[in-house]
Amino acid sequence: MKIGIVGLGLIGGSLGLELRSHSWETIGVSRSRRTCEIALERGAVDRASVSLQDLGAVDIVFICTPIAAIAPTVAKLKDYLAPETIVTDVGSVKLATTQTCTSLWQNFVGGHPMAGTAAQGIEAAQKNLFLDAPYVITPIESTPVAAIKKVEEVAISLGCKVYFCSPEEHDRAVSWISHLPVMVSAALLAASLGETNPTVLALAKNLASSGFRDTSRVGGGNPELGVMMAKYNRPEVLRSLHNYRENLDEIIQLIEEEDWSKLAQILHSTQQARPDFLS
Amino acid sequence: MKIGIVGLGLIGGSLGLELRSHSWETIGVSRSRRTCEIALERGAVDRASVSLQDLGAVDIVFICTPIAAIAPTVAKLKDYLAPETIVTDVGSVKLATTQTCTSLWQNFVGGHPMAGTAAQGIEAAQKNLFLDAPYVITPIESTPVAAIKKVEEVAISLGCKVYFCSPEEHDRAVSWISHLPVMVSAALLAASLGETNPTVLALAKNLASSGFRDTSRVGGGNPELGVMMAKYNRPEVLRSLHNYRENLDEIIQLIEEEDWSKLAQILHSTQQARPDFLS
Repeated sequence: MKIGIVGLGLIGGSLGLELRSHSWETIGVSRSRRTCEIALERGAVDRASVSLQDLGAVDIVFICTPIAAIAPTVAKLKDYLAPETIVTDVGSVKLATTQTCTSLWQNFVGGHPMAGTAAQGIEAAQKNLFLDAPYVITPIESTPVAAIKKVEEVAISLGCKVYFCSPEEHDRAVSWISHLPVMVSAALLAASLGETNPTVLALAKNLASSGFRDTSRVGGGNPELGVMMAKYNRPEVLRSLHNYRENLDEIIQLIEEEDWSKLAQILHSTQQARPDFLS
Repeated sequence: MKIGIVGLGLIGGSLGLELRSHSWETIGVSRSRRTCEIALERGAVDRASVSLQDLGAVDIVFICTPIAAIAPTVAKLKDYLAPETIVTDVGSVKLATTQTCTSLWQNFVGGHPMAGTAAQGIEAAQKNLFLDAPYVITPIESTPVAAIKKVEEVAISLGCKVYFCSPEEHDRAVSWISHLPVMVSAALLAASLGETNPTVLALAKNLASSGFRDTSRVGGGNPELGVMMAKYNRPEVLRSLHNYRENLDEIIQLIEEEDWSKLAQILHSTQQARPDFLS
């Protein structure tokens, strides 16, 4: 199998490293000549190019660009591909992309390997990045079964655990477990920083330990990534935020009313439920 | 120095283990005979008793009971102590306790060693629990300087970093870094569990990884501890919750208005500020 990879960052580069180790021929495309050179040096691709034209003969193309560039890339790519070529992406939001890209290329399959590191770029690419990670595939009615099977085959070869769902289900689920936590956690930092008594703020910074560290971690992460989540998954992020606010308001009200037994009930239910999210 | 410890749980027991290693004589009091036996077996105290009367000859008493029992313990204890005996507590909320206990015992000093483990009870007691932990001492106007110095001396001997502030400043600071995160994190779990589409909820549980795990950790902790924080630090917990809600509402509004540059500003500020809470 010949595999094309557009966008040689952390995900594209790591994908290339892994696929080459399975003896699949990989051709990488990046807008940057320097990135192409590094990808070749690091052994992430067999060949690298700055032109999408060089992907004419591949069987499957993985689009690993930022979300905003996925559909525009498919729009340019379609002039160079054979009709049977499968196009798939690795974007972290699926509904809009899957719809637009399918209208551009009938053999399109939405996908989302859920792996990453704090570092970005081809320099951070690594083998085994995808090992044991979830790989969500989001076919729609019109997605050809053979194309789905091929993406699944590659995902399994990466060592991923494959899940199938609709793009809508994907976007709602990742809003709960990935996008909402970023906003919830950022608001915690923002609120704490708003403390107007400098002695208290300095004391809070000195006393903060593992509880604050963990709860604030994702809210202190990459701001561009946070904006991207909110922008591209806006309806689901807003829905989960409004639901979250209702739950927060209930907790505030119970504390105002000193209804300790109801508050205890909620905290018991969250304690009981959390392990289900960790298995 | 002869030291009394009332309440032989994780904190009282660990305190005893550490103080005995400094060759200070420690006398422990617990309501439970079995706990007294275990404390003796584990070497956490030199002597153990179920009666507060046995603390008549000590120089300083550490009250390590749950918060609700601190003031009642001081009220009982005062009949047995010499006037120069120092009484201090280790409770995690300071204002109400410090006021009440000082009115009961003039030589009272509020304190809060900020150490702990997930496990509870004398069985979980360990040496070095307090090493490098903050120890906040919260004197008020009337607290005798000599008593403050003595508590500081013991705190330093435990390997703690000592901070001094008013009970009000303590309660506000710990609300930001300890009590608010519990409510924020619990609301995240409660909101996610409220997802009405079972496919999405199951998918969310399967896809949740380190981001959700960290943000939900303290909200999935001991429910009794969460209720205790809300109950005994209610004004400060409500204040921080209302401030938090304003920050959350601003984030919701920016996403609704698609004001991505302002959202990016907030996320940049939280990213920049977080390291100050981790040093």
